[in-house]
Amino acid sequence: MTIGPIDWKVTASDGEARSGILRTRRSVIETPVFMPVGTQGAVKGIRFEWLEDELDARIILGNTYHLFLRPGVETIRRLGGLHKFTSWNRSFLTDSGGFQVFSLTDLRKLTEDGVEFRSHLDGSKQFLSPEVSMDIQAALGSEIVMVFDECPPGDAGFDATRTSLEMTARWAARSRARFDELQKTGAEMGHLAADGLSGDQALFGIVQGAGHLDLRRQSLDRTVEIGFDGYAIGGLSVGEEKSVMYEVLDFIAPKMPADAPRYLMGVGTPEDLLEAVNCGVDMFDCVIPTRNGRTGSAFTSRGKLNIRNAKFAADDGPLDTDCPCSVCRRYSLGYLRHLYQAGEMNASIMISHHNVAFFLDTMKRAREAIASSTFQTFRKGFLEKLKENDADGV
Amino acid sequence: MTIGPIDWKVTASDGEARSGILRTRRSVIETPVFMPVGTQGAVKGIRFEWLEDELDARIILGNTYHLFLRPGVETIRRLGGLHKFTSWNRSFLTDSGGFQVFSLTDLRKLTEDGVEFRSHLDGSKQFLSPEVSMDIQAALGSEIVMVFDECPPGDAGFDATRTSLEMTARWAARSRARFDELQKTGAEMGHLAADGLSGDQALFGIVQGAGHLDLRRQSLDRTVEIGFDGYAIGGLSVGEEKSVMYEVLDFIAPKMPADAPRYLMGVGTPEDLLEAVNCGVDMFDCVIPTRNGRTGSAFTSRGKLNIRNAKFAADDGPLDTDCPCSVCRRYSLGYLRHLYQAGEMNASIMISHHNVAFFLDTMKRAREAIASSTFQTFRKGFLEKLKENDADGV
Repeated sequence: MTIGPIDWKVTASDGEARSGILRTRRSVIETPVFMPVGTQGAVKGIRFEWLEDELDARIILGNTYHLFLRPGVETIRRLGGLHKFTSWNRSFLTDSGGFQVFSLTDLRKLTEDGVEFRSHLDGSKQFLSPEVSMDIQAALGSEIVMVFDECPPGDAGFDATRTSLEMTARWAARSRARFDELQKTGAEMGHLAADGLSGDQALFGIVQGAGHLDLRRQSLDRTVEIGFDGYAIGGLSVGEEKSVMYEVLDFIAPKMPADAPRYLMGVGTPEDLLEAVNCGVDMFDCVIPTRNGRTGSAFTSRGKLNIRNAKFAADDGPLDTDCPCSVCRRYSLGYLRHLYQAGEMNASIMISHHNVAFFLDTMKRAREAIASSTFQTFRKGFLEKLKENDADGV
Repeated sequence: MTIGPIDWKVTASDGEARSGILRTRRSVIETPVFMPVGTQGAVKGIRFEWLEDELDARIILGNTYHLFLRPGVETIRRLGGLHKFTSWNRSFLTDSGGFQVFSLTDLRKLTEDGVEFRSHLDGSKQFLSPEVSMDIQAALGSEIVMVFDECPPGDAGFDATRTSLEMTARWAARSRARFDELQKTGAEMGHLAADGLSGDQALFGIVQGAGHLDLRRQSLDRTVEIGFDGYAIGGLSVGEEKSVMYEVLDFIAPKMPADAPRYLMGVGTPEDLLEAVNCGVDMFDCVIPTRNGRTGSAFTSRGKLNIRNAKFAADDGPLDTDCPCSVCRRYSLGYLRHLYQAGEMNASIMISHHNVAFFLDTMKRAREAIASSTFQTFRKGFLEKLKENDADGV
């Protein structure tokens, strides 16, 4: 048996849902796991001390596109890679930059070689390709690197999607080749000796295919053929109907290699996470806990609540009576609403904190339910309870 | 000896400078002390957990004007006063609202009775007077209440200043009367039995008189004649020359009652604090650590630095090599600069945190120097070192 960069083992399963332990060179991660997003090298509004001590996040995301443009790869390299630069010494997963570049519809020019685009910051001409993305992610030194893929729009037709996933497959092979080269030459900034692991980065492939199940199947086969340390599902939650996302998950997730982690990119709400876990997905990331935190929207076990609602003005209860986080243990709805209405950033800080706590706790509860073979009961009860606030007209 | 609401004792002195212990019903405060400002019931960007655990702030400010307008006194009363509302269970000092109202030059109408003004939030007509201010501060339930005073502009002439301080003296007497009534009737929300203390609020008088030393003297005499638990110097750092402020401090502080705490309102820079301590001042508040933190300006033992400076881009050193705070122990200039340039609120959060730590630490070092009779040496060395960054052209 060869020693790999990561090690992932199933510890329990319940239907398609499974729990596991993912070991990277920098942390031990229980799956299913939600990864908070640190786009620019920080989780917005939440200091690393909270993420480590109370929230106990074991892995967070960094965004290649953003970090490439600012502060730039050379600065990060000079400061010793993303871990030293940010001081986050647990695991990082970095995306490839592809998703962001393909969101800049008017600013890009796509060729077989890669994508030319203009920076949203200063309009400067930039170029990303599988090779450039691997180079950047090596300089960042993240534990998990994503291949550079093309992301078609959620409503892409069959032919456009097929053409796109052919490109994605060729780019995946180029990503793999450059990545392997970089690991050999030691150009990677995050290398770390770890018991039973190679100390290198891990590389995940990405399955595309939009809402077309047969194309998803093709994309999966071609990705597995190349071979990766883990497999991601891309191109969901990009504008398509919820039912399409669930259909794709239900179809593709169980067909993904059973012995490698499965990662659903950029998804989603607590409901989405549980539905995907139910299909056998292990890893998630999404900006909504922090983005919604900044706009005063809290995720709770009874559904979302909007802190601006006047009915909370003199409410001395917490955001979520079932939540054990430091915000819910201490601060009242009335106080948080006041801070939000007064434009105090402490409102964003604390609601974001609670939201991340809620997402992490939801995954913890899912893991426990899988371990005790009660996942279906847990899932139904959880989804039912989420509707309570809706019924209250919050 | 009657039991008072607070107890203050000198523990050491060095020239005019003195250190002491101020006991309130909710905390023990070593003086000289810097009080972080929590204008709207929160110190901007810094969660109470940090203020309690690492920074160990024993007293913070709340602003009557802001809290009166939003969330409003009735909401705070319904939620049990400022401590219960915010969850801050150490001491609060509340200002009277006067300073803010008198900053609204175009929005106010002044009579003997009080001040009519328009809310900066919604233009609604509002009224503050000595009685209303005492009523609000009783509802807030702060440990230290400030009298409602008139604040003339820093460049007010002799006659205008004299007229103003006569009003301030009459208002101080009215504040005292209403305050005493409120303590008797138990209308106050913060009452708390405490060993050797009355459990009531304390009331501080305010000395005005702008830059006119004889008027300062008159104002002091009239304030002491009424009698308060502590005495504040108002109307400094409001646009006058630094030299005028230092002259007033040098003249008036040593004449203030020796057995009560002396509080310099709304001041100032680290230099200002040390100069005032040197004149015998014990308490300070100022928004600059957090306001400057939000604009990327850090106070350090070598002077101010601007995090936007390009020379910090790849600097792996801390904001201040001499600072033991959690930000300086962990985060580099390069990282903080990146966060600031990227518009991440974590930059504001962490630079504000460091700045407050620096102010609190400076006061701690002043106390230690006074205790060991080395205050002059400390002060000179401290002020000298502050010039280093200036010399570097930072």
